[in-house]
Amino acid sequence: MAIAILSHEKFPHRAKTALGVLRYGDYDVAAVLDRDNAGERVADFVPDVQDAPIVEGTDDLEADEIDTLLIGISPIGGEFDESWREDVETALERGCDIVSGLHYFLAEDEEFARLAEEHGCELRDVRKPPEDLTVSEGVAGEVDADVILTVGTDCSTGKMTTTMELARNARDAGYDAAVIPTGQTGIMIEGWGNPIDRVVSDFTAGAVEEMILEKGNEHDYLFVEGQGSIVHPAYSAVTCGILHGAMPDKLVLCHNAGQETIHGYESFELPPISTYVDLYERLSAPVSDAEIAAGAINTSDLEDDAAEDAVAEYADELDAPATDVIRFDTDAVLEALLED
Amino acid sequence: MAIAILSHEKFPHRAKTALGVLRYGDYDVAAVLDRDNAGERVADFVPDVQDAPIVEGTDDLEADEIDTLLIGISPIGGEFDESWREDVETALERGCDIVSGLHYFLAEDEEFARLAEEHGCELRDVRKPPEDLTVSEGVAGEVDADVILTVGTDCSTGKMTTTMELARNARDAGYDAAVIPTGQTGIMIEGWGNPIDRVVSDFTAGAVEEMILEKGNEHDYLFVEGQGSIVHPAYSAVTCGILHGAMPDKLVLCHNAGQETIHGYESFELPPISTYVDLYERLSAPVSDAEIAAGAINTSDLEDDAAEDAVAEYADELDAPATDVIRFDTDAVLEALLED
Repeated sequence: MAIAILSHEKFPHRAKTALGVLRYGDYDVAAVLDRDNAGERVADFVPDVQDAPIVEGTDDLEADEIDTLLIGISPIGGEFDESWREDVETALERGCDIVSGLHYFLAEDEEFARLAEEHGCELRDVRKPPEDLTVSEGVAGEVDADVILTVGTDCSTGKMTTTMELARNARDAGYDAAVIPTGQTGIMIEGWGNPIDRVVSDFTAGAVEEMILEKGNEHDYLFVEGQGSIVHPAYSAVTCGILHGAMPDKLVLCHNAGQETIHGYESFELPPISTYVDLYERLSAPVSDAEIAAGAINTSDLEDDAAEDAVAEYADELDAPATDVIRFDTDAVLEALLED
Repeated sequence: MAIAILSHEKFPHRAKTALGVLRYGDYDVAAVLDRDNAGERVADFVPDVQDAPIVEGTDDLEADEIDTLLIGISPIGGEFDESWREDVETALERGCDIVSGLHYFLAEDEEFARLAEEHGCELRDVRKPPEDLTVSEGVAGEVDADVILTVGTDCSTGKMTTTMELARNARDAGYDAAVIPTGQTGIMIEGWGNPIDRVVSDFTAGAVEEMILEKGNEHDYLFVEGQGSIVHPAYSAVTCGILHGAMPDKLVLCHNAGQETIHGYESFELPPISTYVDLYERLSAPVSDAEIAAGAINTSDLEDDAAEDAVAEYADELDAPATDVIRFDTDAVLEALLED
């Protein structure tokens, strides 16, 4: 599948989904659409991801060059920007599917819906949960695969990145590993998945279980993308539902070096790392015997020496191997996760 | 407000919502509609709830006798039974509001919607969450009221009943106490509330917080109806969201005497009571310092002596006062909950 990624005026630094897809997605990216940077290349801005030309719009592509247009940016509020309409309509007229993570559902746009029907295209709004989700049956633990779940000390501690890096490195080392995506960018990267934070709360665990059952007998290892934190004042329900729905064997605790309070909820201090280990393991135990087997720490704000110290200190606190998955290697962490 | 409660062919034993409203609701119940028992009275079947005549249908009531018709039964699947249509339409034609907890939303029924508009009536589907819910701000702990949350070792352990009994007994003893309803029957009894198990998972805590903020400065004590269990394979997300959204001061642990496995998920054993105490308190601590201050145990399957023993043993396990709120008094439990 060759795709183009729409990222007008936001590439690269405000195009998190576009970058995630370029870095981790298994797509042939024919082009990035960014009218501000047309004529340049992805590699001119970001060296360590798939390269692609940057073009002005869908019109600049050959008629058969892509079969999917992916919306790679999300403005505040998740609205559709009318300046993108021509690119989407041209893509539909050429028979391309559209993949979007916006809150504004493209399938509910009359003009897009009409064009999609006329040209036999799919409008895939990944933030819209499927209609057939239901409650968990409590059977995710029965799949053959080892299930490894990333959990966090807060939101935005690198659970998606850690999941993707570990799964990729495991595959590079010859293991049969797949990702279970639970959030918008993860779903765009993998091309499937349930947006767990948008499902009916009663179905939170069930929506994860359904994915585990779908993939759990096809692979040896499933890396499940976690969400939120088990002590987050707003999002702990999602975290708890994923923990019990996935019934993991092992957990990877993700943390930002030096972070002391919950982001956006600064009156709440992060409890000590040992409290997180304790809570995640004890809460999981009655449903699935999982242990924090490794840690991932984001040290991007630190100099090299300090980053190494932070990793070592974090590993000590966890009494388990730890790393910064972007900055250092993941060998010791993967060894702990992939052993029997 | 005078109401009638529709309970055709199900009163009293298969009309849980009708019974809950008769037992705990602050409504003047003009009649119960049950074509199988027309001519009898509620008191002929159930001695300890509000009495009312049982009639064949809305037609048997005076034109101005009620201003609301409440659907007091819910068939499996939550569908609307067409044999009720005439009662609902007659009520609407007389200007009555309709309150329903069915999965089938009355407001989406064309004929009901037309009649409601024509006669200025409200069709209130309590299972449909309001549109304006959002994420928690993490501020429920700032209200003046003491917040007391019922939590459970499983679903169906008496959290709704315990909440209602404790709030009523507290009010009878002169305390200013209100209920925060989170489920269908609780919402019907109280006449307001958010159906927490139907909200978007990201808004679980926020939907509870919104209710705490609405009532928290009007009363001295809020009794929050809990849901599910923190180690339930399917429903723990809802439980966790309520725990962190409500930011309780005290918890009441509800349990069925003798229950050993999770209902409907029998491969999962209930962990020891001490594990529940530990988990609820530790999980709450980083957000709100709450302790299990009392216990409620359902002993309805036991003889009197065994019931007393079960209560005493449960209190020992909790190291806190306990009772069966239906069978015994709640004095010691309330003392523990209402002290400063």
